[in-house]
Amino acid sequence: MRPIARISAPFPDKFGVPRQSGLAPSLTGRIVFLPAFRAPEALRGIEEYSHLWLLWRFSLPEREGWSPTVRPPRLGGNERVGVFATRSPNRPNPIGLSCVRLLAVDREAPDGPALIVSGADLTDGTEIFDIKPYLPYTDSHPEASGGFAERERGRVLAVRIPEEIRRRLPEEICRALEEVLAQDPRPAYHDDPGRVYGFPFAGYEIRFRVQGDEVLVLSAERTGEEG
Amino acid sequence: MRPIARISAPFPDKFGVPRQSGLAPSLTGRIVFLPAFRAPEALRGIEEYSHLWLLWRFSLPEREGWSPTVRPPRLGGNERVGVFATRSPNRPNPIGLSCVRLLAVDREAPDGPALIVSGADLTDGTEIFDIKPYLPYTDSHPEASGGFAERERGRVLAVRIPEEIRRRLPEEICRALEEVLAQDPRPAYHDDPGRVYGFPFAGYEIRFRVQGDEVLVLSAERTGEEG
Repeated sequence: MRPIARISAPFPDKFGVPRQSGLAPSLTGRIVFLPAFRAPEALRGIEEYSHLWLLWRFSLPEREGWSPTVRPPRLGGNERVGVFATRSPNRPNPIGLSCVRLLAVDREAPDGPALIVSGADLTDGTEIFDIKPYLPYTDSHPEASGGFAERERGRVLAVRIPEEIRRRLPEEICRALEEVLAQDPRPAYHDDPGRVYGFPFAGYEIRFRVQGDEVLVLSAERTGEEG
Repeated sequence: MRPIARISAPFPDKFGVPRQSGLAPSLTGRIVFLPAFRAPEALRGIEEYSHLWLLWRFSLPEREGWSPTVRPPRLGGNERVGVFATRSPNRPNPIGLSCVRLLAVDREAPDGPALIVSGADLTDGTEIFDIKPYLPYTDSHPEASGGFAERERGRVLAVRIPEEIRRRLPEEICRALEEVLAQDPRPAYHDDPGRVYGFPFAGYEIRFRVQGDEVLVLSAERTGEEG
């Protein structure tokens, strides 16, 4: 097993990354192949697919070795569930599975060919082991029953970005930020209305506060490096 | 990366294995964990899910190292497509991805706990790296466009199993065999009406012939070992 590519994504750290792929559909990422796998012909025909699977490596900070049971954030962080009944990183092998939309193939870039994708729940620099086409006839099961993850997914927050902040953010970053914050990126069951959270996102340091079901963005300042 | 489990399935060899998971829904398999991972609590809550993902190892006979382009059987074996636009085993890392139905958890077996699943496209003994719940809100995309694999999938054969053969096969094996043969297990673009094919399946040696769009089963003899 060796990485074949890395993703460039707006999240330098884990904070803010959606809990699953597709929850923040405006988030875009760029998948760049490692030199040994930069073969334009390996992507021939991939544009026929609207969605791709990414198999990727859980990085160390989010992983503490494997544990037979884990406490999913969606269950409040108290209830223990078997690790194979979750998508937790604390599984025997450090492989994540995410479905992304394929927006474009960039064949002209000097580090190309690259894949432009949206909806990824990966931090910047995550190593990718495999990219497979999404085949709806074998992969799509809308009737599947989804356990606790399904029951808890409906909850989203309202997001308020004041006009003076909104004006300074590129439109696509603003849209992605709204989706990210709507998912409530706070650690499980934090509910402290006074608390100010901060995280780096797409080259900005975002500060926000949550009151009830509303997120208020307090500031968005450019950081030195582009996310 | 180390295997956590193995599947017991009706196919000792690759011949007959459906091209993707779910195409032969009556095929059942039993997933047995390796001793280091036999932790009943690791499966706590898994029954809430109707479907599971299996991440598994492509075995050597079906894999010839990685190749930037491959010739998918569904395109007749002549046209070359980028490997990342296919689910071919000839990719950089030997990981397959399959969605199966979870039928039951067997917690009482001496080698248990085991998972009884259906629809797997794995040969007997395949090593499994990971088992994840299928989450429809993030994994199901019925609107995804499916490329050539989607266009070619509709074709199935009619299957005729003569009454005297049918009478000697257990009903569930007969049903699974019909589904397997309907998928046309012949190598890509074989079309030789005289030719008799044989393959081992669930402890039987199956012989069949194809004429036009019909498969005729010629015999099903018990072999020494159970599949």
